[in-house]
Amino acid sequence: MAIATALTELSSLLGNRLSRSKSDLAEHGRSETHFPLTPPDGVAYPETTQEVKELVKICASHDCPVIGWGAGTSLEGAGLAIRGGVAVDFRLMDQVIKVNQEDLDVVVQPGLTREELNLYLRDTGLFFPIDPGANASLGGMASTRASGTTAVRYGTMRDNVMAAQVVLADGRVIRTGSRARKSAAGYDLTGLMVGSEGTLGLFTELTLKLHGRPAAVSAAVCAFDDMDSAVNAVIATIQIGIPMARIEFLDTATVLACNAYSGTDFPAQPHLMVEFHGSDKGVADDATRFGEVIADFGGLGFKWSAAEADRNALWTMRHNAYYACLALRKGARAVVTDICVPISRLAEAVEETRDDIAASPLDGPILGHVGDGNFHAILLVDPGDTAQMNIALQLSERMAHRALRLGGTMTGEHGIGMGKLGYMAAEHGDGWSIMGDIKRALDPGNIMNPGKVVKLN
Amino acid sequence: MAIATALTELSSLLGNRLSRSKSDLAEHGRSETHFPLTPPDGVAYPETTQEVKELVKICASHDCPVIGWGAGTSLEGAGLAIRGGVAVDFRLMDQVIKVNQEDLDVVVQPGLTREELNLYLRDTGLFFPIDPGANASLGGMASTRASGTTAVRYGTMRDNVMAAQVVLADGRVIRTGSRARKSAAGYDLTGLMVGSEGTLGLFTELTLKLHGRPAAVSAAVCAFDDMDSAVNAVIATIQIGIPMARIEFLDTATVLACNAYSGTDFPAQPHLMVEFHGSDKGVADDATRFGEVIADFGGLGFKWSAAEADRNALWTMRHNAYYACLALRKGARAVVTDICVPISRLAEAVEETRDDIAASPLDGPILGHVGDGNFHAILLVDPGDTAQMNIALQLSERMAHRALRLGGTMTGEHGIGMGKLGYMAAEHGDGWSIMGDIKRALDPGNIMNPGKVVKLN
Repeated sequence: MAIATALTELSSLLGNRLSRSKSDLAEHGRSETHFPLTPPDGVAYPETTQEVKELVKICASHDCPVIGWGAGTSLEGAGLAIRGGVAVDFRLMDQVIKVNQEDLDVVVQPGLTREELNLYLRDTGLFFPIDPGANASLGGMASTRASGTTAVRYGTMRDNVMAAQVVLADGRVIRTGSRARKSAAGYDLTGLMVGSEGTLGLFTELTLKLHGRPAAVSAAVCAFDDMDSAVNAVIATIQIGIPMARIEFLDTATVLACNAYSGTDFPAQPHLMVEFHGSDKGVADDATRFGEVIADFGGLGFKWSAAEADRNALWTMRHNAYYACLALRKGARAVVTDICVPISRLAEAVEETRDDIAASPLDGPILGHVGDGNFHAILLVDPGDTAQMNIALQLSERMAHRALRLGGTMTGEHGIGMGKLGYMAAEHGDGWSIMGDIKRALDPGNIMNPGKVVKLN
Repeated sequence: MAIATALTELSSLLGNRLSRSKSDLAEHGRSETHFPLTPPDGVAYPETTQEVKELVKICASHDCPVIGWGAGTSLEGAGLAIRGGVAVDFRLMDQVIKVNQEDLDVVVQPGLTREELNLYLRDTGLFFPIDPGANASLGGMASTRASGTTAVRYGTMRDNVMAAQVVLADGRVIRTGSRARKSAAGYDLTGLMVGSEGTLGLFTELTLKLHGRPAAVSAAVCAFDDMDSAVNAVIATIQIGIPMARIEFLDTATVLACNAYSGTDFPAQPHLMVEFHGSDKGVADDATRFGEVIADFGGLGFKWSAAEADRNALWTMRHNAYYACLALRKGARAVVTDICVPISRLAEAVEETRDDIAASPLDGPILGHVGDGNFHAILLVDPGDTAQMNIALQLSERMAHRALRLGGTMTGEHGIGMGKLGYMAAEHGDGWSIMGDIKRALDPGNIMNPGKVVKLN
């Protein structure tokens, strides 16, 4: 009723950019993973910050939930309208506002995707390095504090969002941060908004750090006899201080899935894939040193290449790994896990997880950004098979508690969304209620992506 | 009255570790800069988190302000008890709790100073790089989001505090963050606490990132004909991507002050001081490339050294620069400024500031961490000379607004304390009231360092 009134007013505001078509609602109710279809009541396509502001004010006055929507690539259902309301799709706000080449930063609208940004930057000598795999929107990436393959070198969205424009729950528009490289001017509101999954406000503008495109890039791939050797090789590489831009682990099941999906012919063994950024000489040195380290752990078939085509093939394969895993089992959906532990506990975490999955009836390929201590098991389930789903969720829960026991976190980069809310109390204790206090202070009506991240009374 | 009751109860809790001696009160009421003596009503020396918790509960029940105190090196009076209350001096909580060598992190108590930490780490091959000059406590550094000479390479406290234990205003103790290198698990409470200057809680434990001690370090110093050339050389160096660990600017007045104070004999010209971290070959290459860049800007007398004694002499001189400037004028106190702008606007910001100071009757040496776009003018005033103080404050105010006009911040690293509160509205707009909302949510009684950072009704 209240939502219906809001939709009527939103139609007046946005005209045909407020959609209630079945296909639009379904598109904005789907999930990349195992969550059931959860369509919103309407989809708004604002073109300006001013429209977002008006839109939020209308929703606030009618207690209508407001849920940001980027590229729809969340793995935890962060954008699903679990209490109904309006999905705010930022696809029409996808402009590069300004590249500040001398300062290595760029101001963008939130609907721009990371690949679009890098295409735009192709002649500048600069690039935006954060790479979660999916061609996510930058607003979505900021909302979930995304990272991915390059975080070991370039950090996460926490480290790369310098400033933001945010529309708050009462329609106020604030600017957080600045283009200065550092500041000690009060509470870090940019850092608070990044990772808040749209529960405190909606990004309408982001200022992002850029990085100089490396003069040379080399990539290497290497097989190991077993998972432990591969993981221990990573730990040794990190501890010896070889500066990697990427270091990825794929277990045998993932390698086989990728071979089938991408037509590659890697041996049926666990693999590491690495990338080095630097000068011609630097990356060659790094690759050679890495080759020496992995030899100590029985690394086999080590080869590296500075040729772009080889690298592209390798990372395309890696980026498709999730879909390759899904394709292992026709019609399967996935419960995706995402734990991150201190590097010294990584082998233990991966081993226990592998054993736990092996003792279950499910397939669960393991892969991850092991340079950060972060890895995923892709737990495959047949949709509608409740018994399988329960087993997957139990495996996922044990992984979360394993991460906490080992001094880590239950989500390295995917965020909380719907899938990880149940572990927030275990991870944060009273800190979680403090998050709730902050939410209540900024969004007393609980209209911004309600039901995510925090639990209100 | 209420405070008196709190002090009585605190005496029962802490015995002679609750001090009301005149000398203790005076020590905790002094400032490194121009703020008048502002003694608290008592000084507490807790030994454990549990004691801090009890202490805060007592203060909360009697509306008694609680102000954290580290090494007393704040330049903005962040630790002054402007509404009375209890200074919580962490000097007895100065232990290294655990070095996690494999994970490159360390857990410490907040009273430990950065130099004490590095002394402790001397045989590990690791170090804690953040260097604000003063031998500040790590709790104080986290509270003010400190940085300093090495931020251009290693970031600020925002980037190097991984996790914390915090005692909140109601006596609850929370743990924020974890030892995982990244996390997407909800709001970034660690980031919120870092830089909040004790207004949201008191740090009782910090987990800090460590870094591998570089195999080689080289330092270089170089004079320029004028300030603009030096600043433009910095911009070119940054843009060309030479990886510097430090790049510091000293104007002629600062150089002369240092010569007089430290017995050096640098020419009466603006100088840059830089440091490179890496391999033997790497730092030699970096120094050579830097020499080529500065030659384009008329850099004179360029010399570099990888010898530790030379470097130590150089950085000792730099660290004493503030005291050297103060010594320029017998009995002077300083209004210290701290603006930070995008690097492309740095020359403009420094030039305008120089001209503004030159047009005033005050001495105001300029120096700073120019690799971040951050610099300070040390405005010297005779204590008690109100006219001079007003001129200094007006110069400071114009600097703050200059920084904002150029897309920067009015404080790069010193924080807000008492000195910069007046510019918060200009820098943050409605964002400042959001900070107030957060403060009210976490500290409704406004007992944690009241009167700092935020303005409550």
